[in-house]
Order: sequence, then C-alpha cells, then structure tokens
Amino acid sequence: MSTSVFDAVIVGGGGAGLSAAIYTARANLSTLLLERLMPGGQIASTDLVENYPGFPEGILGPEIARRMESQAVKCGARIGYEDVKRILPQENSHFIIETAANRYQTRAVILAMGSSFRMLGLPNEKELIGKGVSYCATCDGAFFKGKELVVVGGGDSALQEGIFLTKFASRVSIVHRRDKLRASPVLQERARSNVKIHFIWDTVVDKIEGSGKVESVTLRNVKSQVTENLKTDGVFVFIGHDPNSGLVKGLVEIDNHGYVLADNGYKTSVPGIFAAGEVRRGSVRQLIAACGEGCGAALALQNYLENPQTGFAEQRRLL
Amino acid sequence: MSTSVFDAVIVGGGGAGLSAAIYTARANLSTLLLERLMPGGQIASTDLVENYPGFPEGILGPEIARRMESQAVKCGARIGYEDVKRILPQENSHFIIETAANRYQTRAVILAMGSSFRMLGLPNEKELIGKGVSYCATCDGAFFKGKELVVVGGGDSALQEGIFLTKFASRVSIVHRRDKLRASPVLQERARSNVKIHFIWDTVVDKIEGSGKVESVTLRNVKSQVTENLKTDGVFVFIGHDPNSGLVKGLVEIDNHGYVLADNGYKTSVPGIFAAGEVRRGSVRQLIAACGEGCGAALALQNYLENPQTGFAEQRRLL
Repeated sequence: MSTSVFDAVIVGGGGAGLSAAIYTARANLSTLLLERLMPGGQIASTDLVENYPGFPEGILGPEIARRMESQAVKCGARIGYEDVKRILPQENSHFIIETAANRYQTRAVILAMGSSFRMLGLPNEKELIGKGVSYCATCDGAFFKGKELVVVGGGDSALQEGIFLTKFASRVSIVHRRDKLRASPVLQERARSNVKIHFIWDTVVDKIEGSGKVESVTLRNVKSQVTENLKTDGVFVFIGHDPNSGLVKGLVEIDNHGYVLADNGYKTSVPGIFAAGEVRRGSVRQLIAACGEGCGAALALQNYLENPQTGFAEQRRLL
Repeated sequence: MSTSVFDAVIVGGGGAGLSAAIYTARANLSTLLLERLMPGGQIASTDLVENYPGFPEGILGPEIARRMESQAVKCGARIGYEDVKRILPQENSHFIIETAANRYQTRAVILAMGSSFRMLGLPNEKELIGKGVSYCATCDGAFFKGKELVVVGGGDSALQEGIFLTKFASRVSIVHRRDKLRASPVLQERARSNVKIHFIWDTVVDKIEGSGKVESVTLRNVKSQVTENLKTDGVFVFIGHDPNSGLVKGLVEIDNHGYVLADNGYKTSVPGIFAAGEVRRGSVRQLIAACGEGCGAALALQNYLENPQTGFAEQRRLL
C-alpha cells in the first residue's frame, strides 16, 4: 500500500471541512479532504437554507454543499469519499491517516466530523425531513408562521426551541415521555406561562403521518398505552445531538459528551490537530458559524506549519 | 425628536453586522442596523472574493455585500445609513443610540464596526485597490502567480504575509522605512533565508504608477533622498489596522490597540452589548469568519433577551 503525502488532511466534508479546505488549498498547501458520505454534512439533507449570508432567496442544502465542494476542488483540494478508520501520530510530527483502502501521511489534521442529531427512529421520519420534520428551530421556524407544531423532548433545548417556535406558530405542543422536565426551572416557568405552549406528558410519538408533508402524529401515553391522533403541520425533534468523535477518542481530549476540546485558536490537545465546527465543544450549530470556524482552523494550521515547533512527543509533555 | 424602539441595534454593516441582522431579524426580533457608509464594510471595496464558501467562481465584493444587505432586509431588518454618535446605557437595561438626526432605543446592541487597514496615503492608492494594490495576502495572493510584488512594512504581518506571498510570486521586495525590522526574530530569520525575498531598507513608497493596474512604484531612500523606479505587478501594504472602536471608548472594555474585548460568547464587559467581527480582539480578518461571528453574536443576544438578568448597574458590579 503506497502512502500519499499531504500538508493538510481534513476529516469531514460539511461546512467546516469544506471551508477549511478552500483556505488551506488556496494557501498552496496540498490538501486532502476525507468524507464518508456526501459533501455538505448535515446541510446536504436540508431543504431550503435561508440564513446563510449571501443567498437572499435562500439556497437548497444540496446545492450550497455542491458549490462549496466545487470551490474547494477549484482551489486545489483533493476530495476522497472514504471513511477514516484511524489517525496515528508519528514521532516526526507527522500523522498517518488510515481508511479502509488507503493510507495517507500529513503534517497536520483538521477534525471537522460534525455532530448528528438524534432521530426518533420512526419509519418515514427521514423522508419527511424538510417536509415538516425538523431538528433546528433557528433554521426552519420561520417556515411555520401561523401553523401548529409538535415539539418532542423535555430538556433545555426542547423548551428553548419550543418557546422560540411560538414566535411563528399559533400553537406548540411539547410531547415528553415523562411527567417531569429535565429543563432548567427558569425555562420551565417561561414555557408554562406561554399561552401558545401546552404539554403532553408521559407520551411518545409512535408514528408520523403524511404523504409529501407532515399531516399528523400518533401519540401514545406510556402509562395508559392509549393512543391518539394529533393534527400538526410540523414535528420538531430535540432529543439531543451526538458529536461524531468516535474516531479520536483516546487521541485528543474530549469532554463528557464526546465533544472535542479546542482553544480559541482551534487547537486540540495534540499539536498539529485542529478542530472546527460541530464536533468541537462550544460551536454554534449553524452553517455560517461552522464555515467561519473552518476558515479559522485553516489559518491556525497554516500558522502552525510556518512556525515549526518542537517535536510531537515533547509538545505533548508540555501541554 | 421621537424615539423608535427596537429589540436589537447592530452598529456596522459589514459581514459581521449583516450576518447578525439576518439572524436577529429571522428570530423575529425587531432589528435596526446602522451603517455610516455603504453595506459590506471592507468587502465593498474588494474586487473579486474567491474564498467566501458558496461561490466557486468567486463573487465581486460589492455584489456579495448587496446580496447580504437584501437578505437582511428580506428577513425583516431595517437598515439606516447613519453614523452612530453615542451609545447610552439606561437604568432599565435599555440603551439609547444617538445618530446625527435620530434617537433609537434598544434592548441590546451588537458592535460590528470592523477595522480599517492603514493606507499609505498616496494619491491613486484607493483607485488601484483590487488592481494591484492590496491589504490582504490571504485574499489576493493567489492572483499573483509568477508575478513580482512589493510588500510595504516591517512588522510581523509584513514578514508573515511576505513569506506567504512567495508561494505565488516569483519575487517579493519588502520595503521598510527603517534599517531594522520590528518583526519577531524567528520571522526575520525565515524571511532572510527565503531566496525569493529581498529587503529594501530605509525606504518609503513615494508613488504608485499605473493606469488601470499597478505597473511600478517610485521608492525614496529616506537617508540619501535618492529615488528609484521599481517595476512591480502588485503592492501589498501591511502597516497596521485600526479597529473602529472610537464610539465605545469608555463604554466597554477595550485593549491597548483599541480592540473590543469579548468572551467566547461574544459578550463585552457590558451586559446587553455584544461584539463580532474585526472590531473584536481575536477575530480572524476574513469575511466568512466575520459572518460566523455575527451569527454567534446574534444567537447570544437572542439568548440574553430570553433570559432576562439583573439590571444593568448591578450586572456591571458583578463583572
């Protein structure tokens, strides 16, 4: 197996990764971006993106992803559709990146694997994303002016997003599997005093109905097992996110939830490895923010390569 | 004079401010953006922008500015072309914003006034921006493959950017007014050992010549007063930046160079006032990064308004 050599390898082809690739490639660094699925990350499965600055009429998720990908390629980045299996630090401050079929060597790495929202796991949930099913109120709330919505979840983000959605929706039903909320007291109080919000306790969503768009949900009370059908225009699911950081467990420092720790300069605990976008703790879950971080991480990487420091092992000790 | 009331006032209409306005307006917050000149900030005087993700063919500076402006307006933001004179915190956690002609009240403020690069102050310098005169190597370096360049300055950024430009240019002449560099020793060493870089000491640029594009510069040795003409394809000026923070001196904490101090959540020292983009210390000088910060500051502002805290005076004491 031959080993191709790069200045920079970027793991993940969402907004953060593609933006980073545009910057490293345009700085004349040989750049390889590795993505396991398709370009764009979460944005690729989004319908209309209205809040990415520069597109006043909005732009379709797959289209902005395709544009960023072709821009990175035009700047000179190579893009490989491969799943990274391992990142192995070497004694000479280089890294070996292993995929199923290939082995690459690089001087620096940007982690941009993103995060995945947890889904309900219902049969037609995926098909109805962008057609009434959403995981982001900031992104999609404005599409539901005067509509009735169901919010699933009982934590801080379910309540915060539920309250936010009342700016648009006429009614927001928060469906929670238990009879108590995990959310903070101040949010609970605010949600309870909001006339547009009402709670459906001890209840889960068994089905989402609708052809082409969400029309109703089947709810089931987990205590009584009684089911009921509720008409709704949309289902917002806020049951958590998981950072896609399995690859770097044991390699860089991560927090209890699996988010990669990086400083203001996008540096992780390992010199030469940077992190940008939603895999990083503290990142804002928006395409434009991920792209901004990708740019920042690329400039930090560039600075790192231009200012060679002590060897890897020594740096590690100094952390 | 009547006082219009807003949820959010954004000061500055560059990438950070316009992106913030898109987000606050789309979150149904009544939003006023105040800009003293034209939309887009520094980008409006840029020719081709090749590194803003989403535009594989590049996009003209004024065009991306216009697109972001119309997007903010479409989301519901009001844009006023007025110079902000004063920001006055009120006892009730509100702020009064004064312009020459108007007075506005708001619950929260985003500072996005940007920074201004220092210019040489030569007669045709402004007209030749984007036609060979540049203040950003990351932005424009790639346009000078195989060309000869002049870099003006002697500090860290002059050397760092000069070294960066050797990736593209065949020759980089660094023109410095003194016989010593202010730049750090490691950068000096790297620049001196780079075969493409040569230094012209004790020298200033008296004229930039060229019609339609830069063709040569007239250099003058400040010790001998001898002038010489040097053919060049471009002049990169790195003699510093000044944050446009005069408005908030004495209001929020700023550093020795005038940059506004804000934490990772874009909060300044005054609750209810946020900062994003190049006016903020630590910001990366790129459009995409400024837009990402604008988004982050808007989400922080939204969170601040949704979680009312103690009064202004009390918060100030708690800092």
